[in-house]
Amino acid sequence: MPDTSRIKHTKLTSRIMPAREAAALIRDGMVIGASGFTRSGDSKAVLPALAQIAESERIRITLMTGASLGQGTDGALATAGAIAMRLPFQSDPVMRTIINQGGLPYIDENLSETAAHIRNGFLPPIDIAIIEAASIDADGSIVPTTSVGNSAIFVQQAKSVIVEINQAVPVEIRGIHDVFLPEDPTGRAILPITEVWQRIGQDVIACDPEKIAAIVFTNQKDSPAETTSDNAAADAIASHLLHFFEQEIAVGRLTRSLRPIQAGIGKIADAVLSGLAQGDFEHLTMYSEVLQDSTFRLIDSGKMDFASGSSVTLSDDCYQRVFADFEHYRHKILLRPQDITNAAEVIQRLGIIAINTALECDIYGNVNSSHISGSHIVNGIGGSADFAQNSYLSIFVTESVAKAGRISRIVPMVTHVDHSEHDVDVIVTEQGLADLRGMSPRQKAQAILRHCVHPDYHDVLSDYFERACRRGGHTPHALEEAFRLHTNLAETGSMKGRVLMDAAE
Amino acid sequence: MPDTSRIKHTKLTSRIMPAREAAALIRDGMVIGASGFTRSGDSKAVLPALAQIAESERIRITLMTGASLGQGTDGALATAGAIAMRLPFQSDPVMRTIINQGGLPYIDENLSETAAHIRNGFLPPIDIAIIEAASIDADGSIVPTTSVGNSAIFVQQAKSVIVEINQAVPVEIRGIHDVFLPEDPTGRAILPITEVWQRIGQDVIACDPEKIAAIVFTNQKDSPAETTSDNAAADAIASHLLHFFEQEIAVGRLTRSLRPIQAGIGKIADAVLSGLAQGDFEHLTMYSEVLQDSTFRLIDSGKMDFASGSSVTLSDDCYQRVFADFEHYRHKILLRPQDITNAAEVIQRLGIIAINTALECDIYGNVNSSHISGSHIVNGIGGSADFAQNSYLSIFVTESVAKAGRISRIVPMVTHVDHSEHDVDVIVTEQGLADLRGMSPRQKAQAILRHCVHPDYHDVLSDYFERACRRGGHTPHALEEAFRLHTNLAETGSMKGRVLMDAAE
Repeated sequence: MPDTSRIKHTKLTSRIMPAREAAALIRDGMVIGASGFTRSGDSKAVLPALAQIAESERIRITLMTGASLGQGTDGALATAGAIAMRLPFQSDPVMRTIINQGGLPYIDENLSETAAHIRNGFLPPIDIAIIEAASIDADGSIVPTTSVGNSAIFVQQAKSVIVEINQAVPVEIRGIHDVFLPEDPTGRAILPITEVWQRIGQDVIACDPEKIAAIVFTNQKDSPAETTSDNAAADAIASHLLHFFEQEIAVGRLTRSLRPIQAGIGKIADAVLSGLAQGDFEHLTMYSEVLQDSTFRLIDSGKMDFASGSSVTLSDDCYQRVFADFEHYRHKILLRPQDITNAAEVIQRLGIIAINTALECDIYGNVNSSHISGSHIVNGIGGSADFAQNSYLSIFVTESVAKAGRISRIVPMVTHVDHSEHDVDVIVTEQGLADLRGMSPRQKAQAILRHCVHPDYHDVLSDYFERACRRGGHTPHALEEAFRLHTNLAETGSMKGRVLMDAAE
Repeated sequence: MPDTSRIKHTKLTSRIMPAREAAALIRDGMVIGASGFTRSGDSKAVLPALAQIAESERIRITLMTGASLGQGTDGALATAGAIAMRLPFQSDPVMRTIINQGGLPYIDENLSETAAHIRNGFLPPIDIAIIEAASIDADGSIVPTTSVGNSAIFVQQAKSVIVEINQAVPVEIRGIHDVFLPEDPTGRAILPITEVWQRIGQDVIACDPEKIAAIVFTNQKDSPAETTSDNAAADAIASHLLHFFEQEIAVGRLTRSLRPIQAGIGKIADAVLSGLAQGDFEHLTMYSEVLQDSTFRLIDSGKMDFASGSSVTLSDDCYQRVFADFEHYRHKILLRPQDITNAAEVIQRLGIIAINTALECDIYGNVNSSHISGSHIVNGIGGSADFAQNSYLSIFVTESVAKAGRISRIVPMVTHVDHSEHDVDVIVTEQGLADLRGMSPRQKAQAILRHCVHPDYHDVLSDYFERACRRGGHTPHALEEAFRLHTNLAETGSMKGRVLMDAAE
């Protein structure tokens, strides 16, 4: 039953309708801005209903979101042929396949930039915003749920708004959001955040009630975060990184509070954050995109004072625990729009330690975080470049090998560059840590070869480097064989190729 | 004769000495921070004297500057074996050769970052700063000359300071500098610049007079900027870009004042700025690194109101003209530290149009601006990434071919990525302009193939793209032939290789 007490603007109750009726407001060719960031706070009803409609009716939309959606929605929309263009991020395996087949144009954007691109008119104008809400205020303002993402700019720019009130989200969530919309870049506002906990905006998304065309009630939790199993390599990486932090503290560059931490998603980042909970740290803070289970473990451990992000993406267990005792966490977290969480200005000012996962690194410290063999996208660049470019310390973590050793994550030359060597300070694998600060490219190669590569690939990588150096260059390469490991992989199923595999037999 | 009236702190006159004596203060292994940015405001006497000393004595220093030095100083130091490490930029042909031979470690840095790296202790502590000055104040403060660069952080951090008072620079230069030193990133200050002309600092570099170990008098102008001859391709590029600006004005995204402009160095940027002087623009402003002849032509044309940079680098003719009538220009220009001119925060807030030169672009919009065939560095990344990453519009210009057509500047895959497709909005060659905003990688490739490539290379690039697309991928590549044009060049002297050259015969 719809709990209409969640709609304080009582006239708006007349706009309550079933999801399918709201979805019918969306016409072929429209541009839709939908809430959702890392599978949190996304549309649970209207977009799935649209996917159903699109199975029998021609309807193709441009779909913008905060970041990834849950519920298999992106896959259903893509399969139904309902997407003419998708941006700025997705992580759905079905949609990914269609993108890589060339069946769906996808703009993989830095997550900080979409709001500005909309505001500047670089993207088509938004027809309808679809926003998950906990409630609607008397003035029409929208109380978001577990993410903010790009919802504020979508509501501001859309001609009309569909609100999904999710009754599975407690109304008590109100107050953890800080919504700030920067002005047009011509006279763009200073973002006056100097501490992670600082509020600069409103706790709701302002919305003219006349723009609210439909209200749909739902009662469904976010897709849970995938919990990660124990992983020895991730633990080894965390251990190297914690040792590095200890060294930085010893020489006085860091304190036991470190600096505000940004961490990507995944088992390695999770292991690092868990390691912090065990270590001798205090008054830690986080200025990141996604608040994960590990964030709340750090808060519970008493080691973390505050965490700012754009979404809360938790496992089922952690979700239950956090919302069962929400008053305990309320004043320790804040959710902001992604152009604020990922703003260069704030990241630089706070002096953030950024920890992100690399898909592959090269011997000179360039990082690929998005494209397999340079061609096939996994998810996208996400916010990694926003943080890597502007952080105090940019750390990339990866296992040295994948697929039982058939793939080396360290290669002569990355097949796609998301982060150039200028934006990579430290690379950590389970083999060790290379601190690349203050090094020339050849020195970086020596450090990465010494500390990060897997023994199975040490000789082939060292050999490449030495022969390239004999040819000369500031960043020596032998172009005709720079991708030999990758072509080996394509031809033989292993980067080791036939020769190395024969030798190993 | 030394004009000691340029030293208001009269006790310091006792520290006047010949350049060679001051250079002798520099010991083997020291870290030196020297003024100089784009060959302006650099050491004219002490570093050249050090190069001479190093010819007969073992002395190897780490040399940090703002950017490039003039006077052949970098070449002389490198030849003498006086450099253990060089950063963050150089453009000397002799030093470049030694770097590419592996004879000199070079850290090619984003120009915005060096000051923070010093402040954070990521680089070794500075022993001596060598700063060119117009005069010294009564409290020891230093009045810089034609550049600010990293001079302020060098003076702040160095144990001692050598001042070169250059009598060729009129004392009237005082007042055009705005020196602001941000605090440590832990609580780094907001940079409150919201207009290009805004001052936030002091007009001098604060310096404890006790730190001034030597004063050397010189009387020598900066190395003049290379003047560029007429170039039809550069004019065509400028014409395409001006047409694009007109279109942007027509749709209301820009006004006739455009937005603050940043322009790299070189004939194409020069042609673009000259084009602006001819066009129907008004109240233009510049927030750039280098104020060049074209900047002053724009000011003279009445089209440009104000220009902020980190150096003034002019031809001899323009230098004479500007300093002969300096009062006319004084209130229209400002020189700032390079971590302020290139600050992400300010570049984003002002909404800058960044125009930089590409060495090569690939069909997906990635840009190489530093490395020939991925290995050999030309100069360095300079400030191009600072601007490309944070600008309102990031434009890269390049001729479609070089070396009489033997090199295509558009290639299947760039051999070195300085700017990823995320930071490239527009690519312009003399063939045309590709507006890449709001496009997926495959759409970008189609636009670049249609508008930017030279007819001689159209088929080979289109063929690569089509075959790569058949293999699939979000950014389709065929790795085993991604660098075929480059290996053709290495093997046959032309990217066309034997087949295409035979066909052309």
